[in-house]
Amino acid sequence: MPREITAFSNTLVKRVRSLRDKKHRKAEGLFLAEGLRILTEAREAGRLPEYLFFAADSARHALVLALVDAVEAAGGEAIQTSHDILSKLSGKDNPQAVVGVFPEFTTPLAALDRSTSPIWLVAERLRDPGNLGTILRTGDAVGAGGLILVDDCVDPFSVEAVRASMGALFTIPIAQARWDEFLPWLRSGPGQLVGLSLQTNQDYRSASYQAPTFLLTGNEAQGLPDVYETECDLLVKLPMLGKADSLNAAVATAVMAYEVLAQHRR
Amino acid sequence: MPREITAFSNTLVKRVRSLRDKKHRKAEGLFLAEGLRILTEAREAGRLPEYLFFAADSARHALVLALVDAVEAAGGEAIQTSHDILSKLSGKDNPQAVVGVFPEFTTPLAALDRSTSPIWLVAERLRDPGNLGTILRTGDAVGAGGLILVDDCVDPFSVEAVRASMGALFTIPIAQARWDEFLPWLRSGPGQLVGLSLQTNQDYRSASYQAPTFLLTGNEAQGLPDVYETECDLLVKLPMLGKADSLNAAVATAVMAYEVLAQHRR
Repeated sequence: MPREITAFSNTLVKRVRSLRDKKHRKAEGLFLAEGLRILTEAREAGRLPEYLFFAADSARHALVLALVDAVEAAGGEAIQTSHDILSKLSGKDNPQAVVGVFPEFTTPLAALDRSTSPIWLVAERLRDPGNLGTILRTGDAVGAGGLILVDDCVDPFSVEAVRASMGALFTIPIAQARWDEFLPWLRSGPGQLVGLSLQTNQDYRSASYQAPTFLLTGNEAQGLPDVYETECDLLVKLPMLGKADSLNAAVATAVMAYEVLAQHRR
Repeated sequence: MPREITAFSNTLVKRVRSLRDKKHRKAEGLFLAEGLRILTEAREAGRLPEYLFFAADSARHALVLALVDAVEAAGGEAIQTSHDILSKLSGKDNPQAVVGVFPEFTTPLAALDRSTSPIWLVAERLRDPGNLGTILRTGDAVGAGGLILVDDCVDPFSVEAVRASMGALFTIPIAQARWDEFLPWLRSGPGQLVGLSLQTNQDYRSASYQAPTFLLTGNEAQGLPDVYETECDLLVKLPMLGKADSLNAAVATAVMAYEVLAQHRR
């Protein structure tokens, strides 16, 4: 039976709200995800929140009921609350009907099984949480085996990244590694490392991709370090006909991923 | 000779800061763009701000000098100021060295020349400013003739959209129209209207695109209205192998645009 919280001063409300800060997320090992669509995606992927906050007036919605039941069956707590408190938790004026507090999870490199997919995404020093979430979402769409975050990337459990992933955070494995951990792991098995670069003349459409392909995208402002490009099996570039000579990192990753997918499906 | 402003209470500072709100942008016909890269892109595209704020310690940077000279030569005003005021104007803790105040501009549909490019981007009820800016940036990269915003889209002159466009706002034409203005204009000349849809089995890679191709992307949450899809010459879908069954709107637009570009270049 869900309890009800309506006081802003409630200790749990304060604690959950603090998870918007990375420092608190790392200290607690917990993160926030919001919205019925994303939480249902999580539930279907076998991930349930420890705490589920839901709006009183959404309590009869079938998907909310399914979440409440699943959370309680798994030993978590479902909490009925007000729109104002949901707004406070989500930081949005128009909050979603549900907010979940999940334990953080990542997959160790050694646990990634490269036979599960012909496409893997690798991002290096990615700074923008929206880009990270969008890349996860693209990874889900192309059936990527996982996303490997190399060196100091933005936190995949930030509210913005979770939101932009539209639930893909829960559906594809995420690993985090330093470059000098990633490279030996990569070379310990089959895998073509393909770097997106401005310093090559190899057009991405005339290159040939071998499965499993590891698509490596560099930092938004700086791209890949030269020494990382040297380690790639293949460097490719996207045509840029305009004046700006750059693409959003998540967009470039997606265009590449769909080309690799098309080649693998031929 | 630039004047100096250091007081937060300055009338111009308050007025410029208010341009972060759409209501004030529309009342003044002005918008904000920030950062040396974006303002230099604008200058090279022949767009100069009416007011240019720059940090005192950046005054010797060659690109800042070039901007100051160009703005003053065109009758605008260059204003030397503090990091604190730049921070207030841009809403960021680490402000860029320059902030410009530009007159808003859009291109009337009738002034678009469809012979200038084989690819045109059309977005319908786009809600997210980051998506709008990212689509502009992609438009620049694929050499699109312009972006046509149909029905109630987010304001392309919002701070977030301008930022995400990385200057492409200044390099490709933007038109705004209702659907019942857009469609007659489109049909008044050559043009294949291609809609991105979840309701077709036509894979985007096996479809055939004719120039000029008008790529139509619908609202992030709802996609295109059925009646708009009916008017398309071709509906295509992107493969989605994952669980989420969706892609970010800017990502889907980019994957499509690069496929159209590849076909046109063959």
